[in-house]
Amino acid sequence: MPYEFKAQRRVEFSDTDMAGIMHYSNFFRFMETAEHGFFRSLGFTIAPRQFEAGQSKVGWPRVHASCDYHQPLRFEDMVEIHLLVAEKKSKAITYQFRFRKLDDGAGKEVARGRLTVVCVGYDDSTGAMKAACIPPEIAGRIDTAPTELLA
Amino acid sequence: MPYEFKAQRRVEFSDTDMAGIMHYSNFFRFMETAEHGFFRSLGFTIAPRQFEAGQSKVGWPRVHASCDYHQPLRFEDMVEIHLLVAEKKSKAITYQFRFRKLDDGAGKEVARGRLTVVCVGYDDSTGAMKAACIPPEIAGRIDTAPTELLA
Amino acid sequence: MPYEFKAQRRVEFSDTDMAGIMHYSNFFRFMETAEHGFFRSLGFTIAPRQFEAGQSKVGWPRVHASCDYHQPLRFEDMVEIHLLVAEKKSKAITYQFRFRKLDDGAGKEVARGRLTVVCVGYDDSTGAMKAACIPPEIAGRIDTAPTELLA
Amino acid sequence: MPYEFKAQRRVEFSDTDMAGIMHYSNFFRFMETAEHGFFRSLGFTIAPRQFEAGQSKVGWPRVHASCDYHQPLRFEDMVEIHLLVAEKKSKAITYQFRFRKLDDGAGKEVARGRLTVVCVGYDDSTGAMKAACIPPEIAGRIDTAPTELLA
Repeated sequence: MPYEFKAQRRVEFSDTDMAGIMHYSNFFRFMETAEHGFFRSLGFTIAPRQFEAGQSKVGWPRVHASCDYHQPLRFEDMVEIHLLVAEKKSKAITYQFRFRKLDDGAGKEVARGRLTVVCVGYDDSTGAMKAACIPPEIAGRIDTAPTELLA
Repeated sequence: MPYEFKAQRRVEFSDTDMAGIMHYSNFFRFMETAEHGFFRSLGFTIAPRQFEAGQSKVGWPRVHASCDYHQPLRFEDMVEIHLLVAEKKSKAITYQFRFRKLDDGAGKEVARGRLTVVCVGYDDSTGAMKAACIPPEIAGRIDTAPTELLA
Repeated sequence: MPYEFKAQRRVEFSDTDMAGIMHYSNFFRFMETAEHGFFRSLGFTIAPRQFEAGQSKVGWPRVHASCDYHQPLRFEDMVEIHLLVAEKKSKAITYQFRFRKLDDGAGKEVARGRLTVVCVGYDDSTGAMKAACIPPEIAGRIDTAPTELLA
Repeated sequence: MPYEFKAQRRVEFSDTDMAGIMHYSNFFRFMETAEHGFFRSLGFTIAPRQFEAGQSKVGWPRVHASCDYHQPLRFEDMVEIHLLVAEKKSKAITYQFRFRKLDDGAGKEVARGRLTVVCVGYDDSTGAMKAACIPPEIAGRIDTAPTELLA
């Protein structure tokens, strides 16, 4: 079963700040690009449209996010965001993300992130979110990455 | 009746880009700050929460947005965003926005923007947006600015 | 000589707002994606790195930006941003942008934008920007699109 | 000596995402608002303008950022971002951030963040960043918060 996904993005001008590098908050937007691409690769969407039939209507709010920055990313850098499923619980998933610059041959890791998301359903009458078990059709398609890959 | 509103924002580090100035797309986010502050000043909110009672559930998608840039804004600049109601129709409002730097005494105009928004309701069964008349409790509180102020 | 370029982007979760559609300011970030891809396609970069040799150190601040919105874009929509050079002067370029949704076969135009940028150099001692002629190696590579394409 | 600072921001429409809540990456932009306000409160700026005299030209790239989210923030929520200096080293500072909603009387903590920044200087000939000691005029103005406040 799938436990990883690789997305690519180019650093846009609007991703940079006056220090000439990608603003540190944008690494978290890039993590989502990989997370949502991972879901698409499984045949799901992270955010089913309202009134859309078939897929369970769940949401995935974040409860923890972190990033360690080793080297800056700059305008026009091509970046690989490598998602690995670090932990899978009944109501939560933790992802690890490795950012690599693709321009230099080595594909050097420039940052490493982590994201814990919980599965929530919505109360029909109030719209309030409440923790829910990951729907089996999703949980049954996601595996935890081998320990040696997460080191 | 009210036809103008002044909001203030400081240019944040994350609003800048690698050219050392506020990214041009962020002027449009600043325009909304003034638009939404204007609505609050009238006792409304631009985006009533779902299931919230009392206020008509309408939305205000943008159909036109433009901005002319005279001078750059930089990190930590204090900016006044001066909203003027340029036109009011049954289903649409056009705002003019004047950006002024507050740090220098003169309050020099550094940019001028324009936004046309239309009022929409939502189809209960499909969620689709459709143009709607501005609810009278809102339309009755908004006036068009005198022509001489819009020159 | 080249007068157009087509870029593609997928609407990310972080591009949306609470109305469930792409925030209107992000269309301006998408325009830049096409503008900068156009420059790369010509062998240039819109923002030469400091101390980088060879390419004239010029900047391209925006003096005008506008967008007309016909239909909303939603999460995961694949979008084509079609850049056309609408006007080329000695110190300024005006681009037209057509946004099309690629998911439906028709490639329907959902928005149309316009951007006027001026070429500036930097004063060595103060860093101040001043209008400059477009370097001939760049100007000589960019053509104006045929009138019938701009209609 | 100062070891804390409180900033306030209102959640803007453009800070939200299609889930109807503030996008999780924006908590990191809000943290910077408090960090940079803290510096201003000390008489400094986090980003001295190029060619500006007097203040040492140092930068503050982030090496670690994290956030734990307890409750969502929504459009128009007034938020207090409470910065506390958690650790001060010769070349690095770690901040703790507590996000509180100001609308309800209790000022409930909705998220808690952490940021480690390092002080860097710039090589005059290449522009490259290299770790540097925090200039004494800055270090001498910043204290570590009492342990009991950081619990």
